[in-house]
Amino acid sequence: MNEKKCATDAEREPSADTIVERAWQALRSVLDPELERDIVSLGLVRQVEVRDGRAEVELALTSGTCPARDSIAADARRALLSLEGIHDVEFRFRTLSEEEQKRLVEKSEGTARPFNKVRHTLAVMSGKGGVGKSLVTGLLAVALRQSGARVGILDADITGPSIPRMFGMREEVSSCPFGLRPPQTKGGIKVMSMNLLLAEEGQAVIWRGPLISRAIEQFWGDVLWGSLDYLLVDLPPGTSDAPLTVLQSLPVESVLLVTSPQELAGMVVRKAAGMAKQLHLPIIGLVENFAHFTCPHCCEKIDPFGPSHSALLSHQVAAPLLGRLPLDPTLAECCDRGMLENCPLDAFMPVAEAICRKLGEPLCWPPRPH
Amino acid sequence: MNEKKCATDAEREPSADTIVERAWQALRSVLDPELERDIVSLGLVRQVEVRDGRAEVELALTSGTCPARDSIAADARRALLSLEGIHDVEFRFRTLSEEEQKRLVEKSEGTARPFNKVRHTLAVMSGKGGVGKSLVTGLLAVALRQSGARVGILDADITGPSIPRMFGMREEVSSCPFGLRPPQTKGGIKVMSMNLLLAEEGQAVIWRGPLISRAIEQFWGDVLWGSLDYLLVDLPPGTSDAPLTVLQSLPVESVLLVTSPQELAGMVVRKAAGMAKQLHLPIIGLVENFAHFTCPHCCEKIDPFGPSHSALLSHQVAAPLLGRLPLDPTLAECCDRGMLENCPLDAFMPVAEAICRKLGEPLCWPPRPH
Repeated sequence: MNEKKCATDAEREPSADTIVERAWQALRSVLDPELERDIVSLGLVRQVEVRDGRAEVELALTSGTCPARDSIAADARRALLSLEGIHDVEFRFRTLSEEEQKRLVEKSEGTARPFNKVRHTLAVMSGKGGVGKSLVTGLLAVALRQSGARVGILDADITGPSIPRMFGMREEVSSCPFGLRPPQTKGGIKVMSMNLLLAEEGQAVIWRGPLISRAIEQFWGDVLWGSLDYLLVDLPPGTSDAPLTVLQSLPVESVLLVTSPQELAGMVVRKAAGMAKQLHLPIIGLVENFAHFTCPHCCEKIDPFGPSHSALLSHQVAAPLLGRLPLDPTLAECCDRGMLENCPLDAFMPVAEAICRKLGEPLCWPPRPH
Repeated sequence: MNEKKCATDAEREPSADTIVERAWQALRSVLDPELERDIVSLGLVRQVEVRDGRAEVELALTSGTCPARDSIAADARRALLSLEGIHDVEFRFRTLSEEEQKRLVEKSEGTARPFNKVRHTLAVMSGKGGVGKSLVTGLLAVALRQSGARVGILDADITGPSIPRMFGMREEVSSCPFGLRPPQTKGGIKVMSMNLLLAEEGQAVIWRGPLISRAIEQFWGDVLWGSLDYLLVDLPPGTSDAPLTVLQSLPVESVLLVTSPQELAGMVVRKAAGMAKQLHLPIIGLVENFAHFTCPHCCEKIDPFGPSHSALLSHQVAAPLLGRLPLDPTLAECCDRGMLENCPLDAFMPVAEAICRKLGEPLCWPPRPH
């Protein structure tokens, strides 16, 4: 048996009547894990030959350092070996030529958008700085991820990003023809943040609004998020360019507000709530951070920021108070050390459950294979 | 004795040889408290008559509700009664005509700038939100004011202003032909803030960068600050439009950085420090907020945000650590209730002293008459 066929995708018939046809068909079940499309329709399979039960496959990858290479090859090998008449598989790898890459990108309208499928996009907002937006974003991402969901964090705080530090991320952002590949935390949360693009995390990004907005738009449209159950957008303080761009240009489903017990903070959070309302975005609820503190010496409960005004705020912004989180020094240390995924989630789980309930999703669905 | 003279300012001779001349001369010692120029050269004295020891003065004011009316009249009365030959004074008030106002404004190049004389302009910055920039700004203003200095606060946080609430200010901002009059706190600190211009303090200001920048420029150039010893500029978080405009367009002398003990906060503060350095502005020092907490039950000292990283930060940004402020629930309550001027300053005084020392000013100069 010695067959060879280099027909293009369009020329091939769905009915596989030869071993090569069946091999092509089998390869259609192999997905590029980043682009989440099958490798045949993406044009990555360039040639298939079968000789004496041995399949030789030429795979063209988007870059020489394509991180998905091994997983694609493993899946393709599995798919081919499941066919009767194939007992060995060999791969030849090459990089897509510039012309081939260009054709591939044209198919996707030049952005990563066609590859991004997000079920729930939630903006975590406050108006006020330092109330723990990034902490709530991070904890929610960890809780959702640990329950089996596919989660991404878009860090829209371009000038003061906190997310990479909380997760101890120092990965460089690599790219493919469709855009940037979001690095992943140890637990598998995809993250895109300005601090992942800087040579040094303390480097200042001195940009006026239009550049800030452009960066946020790129973090959505030019990043290969792929299929996600949740994309959490961590917003900077204020009601200026960054939140405006997120709420106007990104497909945000609803807004989660974060506040602290102080009435002063609540006053600023009301501004953020007003902004969400003006832009016709529903507010899913309110989370109060730094609500109380347990003295490690005498175990008494203390209100370090005075009595809570969040019940009043909840009434004012007509959104439910989903939970009150304690001020916890171990959590602060976890963030400083980049160990947010290792910190205890007990206090946060009821908040995560309340948020999921609001989104109509069970938090503890059976873990999916990733 | 019955003399009358309506000569314009330019026509009058400096040698006062008649009682009316001497009256004009005496009125030159009376200052408009807002514009800090004498009322004769400002053109506010329109006519002076002296009959039988009784002076009749026509004063034209910038508006019908000019808040300085009574103080100008009292000073003018005192000046005239000190002259031999005058034992009674009567005033006629009227408002400057549109034409007269226009001429007055043209003299001042159309802005309040010629009337503003500030000895030290200090930007209070952090990069990070919620570390207590506004609290440090407010406490420093109170400390300086209580030591006798003339102090103003320019709240450059347009979308999340905290200063008016901390001082319990609900004053409306009035205006005169030269610009806006900054309302004063009970203790006499002049304040200009976006929240003083809104109908409701929780109202959202959804503006992109250019509008934010324009508002800040107006808070400097179109506000009658008058003569101040200190103008403190409270910056919002980030390194985008607002801080850029403050550091580039306002006559800022130096930058005071505020941080919290967390390394994560310090990382963002380094960005602000980098911005100040790129714009060639000296950093006067660093204040750490929320440094420790004393349990009200067992009196043990606790680090609620984990161990401090400010010594390292001070080294990294090459600026001295001027002080560490505790997390104090009573301070939070003072701010919520608008009573910042009534809260104990003990913990803050060493910081205020260190800042004044850096500016080459003694903190405890003898109180001046205001």
